Amino acid sequence: MANNITISQAAQYLGQEVTISGWVYNKTGKGKLHFIMVRDGTGVIQVVIFKGNVTEEAFEKCAALTQESSIRITGVISEDLRAKGGHELQAKEVEVLNIAPEYPISPKEHGIEFLMDNRHLWLRSSKQHAILKIRHEIIKASRDYFDNLGFTLVDAPIFTPSACEGTSNLFETDYFDTKAYLTQSGQLYMEAAAMAFGKVYCFGPTFRAEKSKTRRHLTEFWMIEPEVAFFDLQQDMDLAEGMIIYIVDRVLEKRRQELEILERDVSKLEAVKTPFPRIHYDEAVKLIKAENPEFIDGDDLGGTDETIVSSHFDRPVMITHYPAAVKAFYMKRSAQQPDRALCVDVLAPEGYGEIIGGGQREDDLEILLSRIREHNLPQEAFNWYLDLRKYGTVPHAGFGMGIERTVAWICGRPHIRETIPFPRTMYRLTP
Amino acid sequence: MANNITISQAAQYLGQEVTISGWVYNKTGKGKLHFIMVRDGTGVIQVVIFKGNVTEEAFEKCAALTQESSIRITGVISEDLRAKGGHELQAKEVEVLNIAPEYPISPKEHGIEFLMDNRHLWLRSSKQHAILKIRHEIIKASRDYFDNLGFTLVDAPIFTPSACEGTSNLFETDYFDTKAYLTQSGQLYMEAAAMAFGKVYCFGPTFRAEKSKTRRHLTEFWMIEPEVAFFDLQQDMDLAEGMIIYIVDRVLEKRRQELEILERDVSKLEAVKTPFPRIHYDEAVKLIKAENPEFIDGDDLGGTDETIVSSHFDRPVMITHYPAAVKAFYMKRSAQQPDRALCVDVLAPEGYGEIIGGGQREDDLEILLSRIREHNLPQEAFNWYLDLRKYGTVPHAGFGMGIERTVAWICGRPHIRETIPFPRTMYRLTP
Repeated sequence: MANNITISQAAQYLGQEVTISGWVYNKTGKGKLHFIMVRDGTGVIQVVIFKGNVTEEAFEKCAALTQESSIRITGVISEDLRAKGGHELQAKEVEVLNIAPEYPISPKEHGIEFLMDNRHLWLRSSKQHAILKIRHEIIKASRDYFDNLGFTLVDAPIFTPSACEGTSNLFETDYFDTKAYLTQSGQLYMEAAAMAFGKVYCFGPTFRAEKSKTRRHLTEFWMIEPEVAFFDLQQDMDLAEGMIIYIVDRVLEKRRQELEILERDVSKLEAVKTPFPRIHYDEAVKLIKAENPEFIDGDDLGGTDETIVSSHFDRPVMITHYPAAVKAFYMKRSAQQPDRALCVDVLAPEGYGEIIGGGQREDDLEILLSRIREHNLPQEAFNWYLDLRKYGTVPHAGFGMGIERTVAWICGRPHIRETIPFPRTMYRLTP
Repeated sequence: MANNITISQAAQYLGQEVTISGWVYNKTGKGKLHFIMVRDGTGVIQVVIFKGNVTEEAFEKCAALTQESSIRITGVISEDLRAKGGHELQAKEVEVLNIAPEYPISPKEHGIEFLMDNRHLWLRSSKQHAILKIRHEIIKASRDYFDNLGFTLVDAPIFTPSACEGTSNLFETDYFDTKAYLTQSGQLYMEAAAMAFGKVYCFGPTFRAEKSKTRRHLTEFWMIEPEVAFFDLQQDMDLAEGMIIYIVDRVLEKRRQELEILERDVSKLEAVKTPFPRIHYDEAVKLIKAENPEFIDGDDLGGTDETIVSSHFDRPVMITHYPAAVKAFYMKRSAQQPDRALCVDVLAPEGYGEIIGGGQREDDLEILLSRIREHNLPQEAFNWYLDLRKYGTVPHAGFGMGIERTVAWICGRPHIRETIPFPRTMYRLTP
């Protein structure tokens, strides 16, 4: 019996008889010949069906093949440099498993809503396929990066007990006799874990019920969040820089073909080298004001402001020392500038916006308590978190990287909705 | 300046001056000597503080050190085979960062509720630490297994649009103008993805609102779910068997020390070799009835029944061909026994219960439609899923493995709540 192989293995079976199973991608031919492009998820191969080589019945059936029909072909692999993929399969036996009715997605233009309604089928298209292969590579690379540095994976919980920072952007669910909220970040839990393991990260979905329709927002998105004990802002920035370089290098090494399918300008990715520019918030404000005089010193950066700053650099830029007032209560303040937070945002180049936010955490019990009071937060809900400052507090820092924004940047896709298999937005919960 | 190192690196710095930062695990000594056991998340080292070697002030401060106080010590590493970890640090400088108040968790016995209330601190204990290190290894091994076989990671959505199989065990949330439900399994989405990529898996949290208090249930647990196109039940079982062997071998190779801390009988894990017994449901029933005559032929297996079956084997056992009536609507039926499903459950040895459920999926559009009607399911909600049988349907199969149950088995922990960093159960939503 012939070996069952995937299309990606074709080169290893030159001249041999094999069986390939897949779906019809395209079909041409005339008279005694059918040329069928078959995809199987690992690649595309041209199948040549010559009337004399297969049964009369099989040849007739092949005439009826439509896009996305499923088939199994046994034949001999030959090299054909003209063919896509570089190989050809000369069919000896063809088994038609299913003739598909007219496929809804054709090479003609479709509206985005139509494509999203058919996301379960759209995933078969070459560009969507390429984006998700790169997404996989990015996720794998970020995990490998931390694993290689001796970090421990500690999954943060999804259900959280209280709406610590207000309920406005939280998804709420009944939880037996009480309410639970879906996590927005695993950070506080990672701080606890860092005190147990030294270096930790979590990787999971996070949720924001924002009524936001921008191309940068999803209600459900994935984050990787490292946290390290005995770590300061500078070390945190080194860690983030190292991770981004590692991810970009890996994608360039392993996913050239997919970047090509996406027509990504890889020179832009090849420019991502150490060191990344590290600029103070005040410096960023100067760059912004030159182009957007309306910007108010002391405000957080909007999408346009981020684009202005990042346009000055050919690689990710790190902005530090934001006004503490626009950052979370747990941020440690600068000793030199007590109104500034020891924080960092990393903006992707080419206007893709913020991909990382992080910084050093306040490690002094009394200061943290007073911040909780200033922010009118319910102290009781934070008692366990305050314990971390009681029992052996140490300087520590960490960050969170949004996976989908990183995928959007590396793939060069303007809209984040294509960077996750089944996107969830304010208006989309299906399929 | 001395190198900052972790305790796990001590062996590489014999005779050299280094700085180690960590937490006090234990303290003894008398007169002119303090012996301090320090942990830093990578290991434990004995620090020797001799009065003449450090400042008077530092020596006095060390006298006040309590469990979980945080310190930074500079000194010289020497070998000491009597000491835990095999090395000793002869202190020259000591910086006390924080003196902890009396630590709530002491070596004496604590109730489980107390420990769970202090889960953020309990993570620092050596057994909990060991379990979570093994959890990390199991997760990494399962991902590596599929990555090495050319699978594509395709994250399934957490928010799902409709309560396809009834709302009783689902967590519900307001989703803007509609309702959303938290996923119980990514399988249906993986079937769509398998038609695009051939071989796929997802890895993420899943949710069940079961009012169950057993030691095997969590409301929030993690699953890995592979799905493969052109795959049948036999191949599916081979894949599952290969994965389990791969995971167990990896843990035995990399986490011996942690298994030792847990006092795990590793001979039980070493016995996990291919081939796993594969038995028909009817055969399982015979084994069960011999010990539990009340068992009704045709029923699903309960926890006790699973233990009876698994007690006959020294490795995981695969049970196939359950009555279709007790399995989900999408299971393909056996051609030889049309009332049986082409499904498989894998039971861990030693009574740890089901860790895997899976099987071949119904791939015929008409049959699937009639099953949906028989089960009184809303057809409209499944239209996208039915599309997979319209546009190039192919035989396919997959399974889901519960991470926490697998961790419980491999670590030899009877209760699943210790196998996840921050467990969520019917009665527990904190910390």
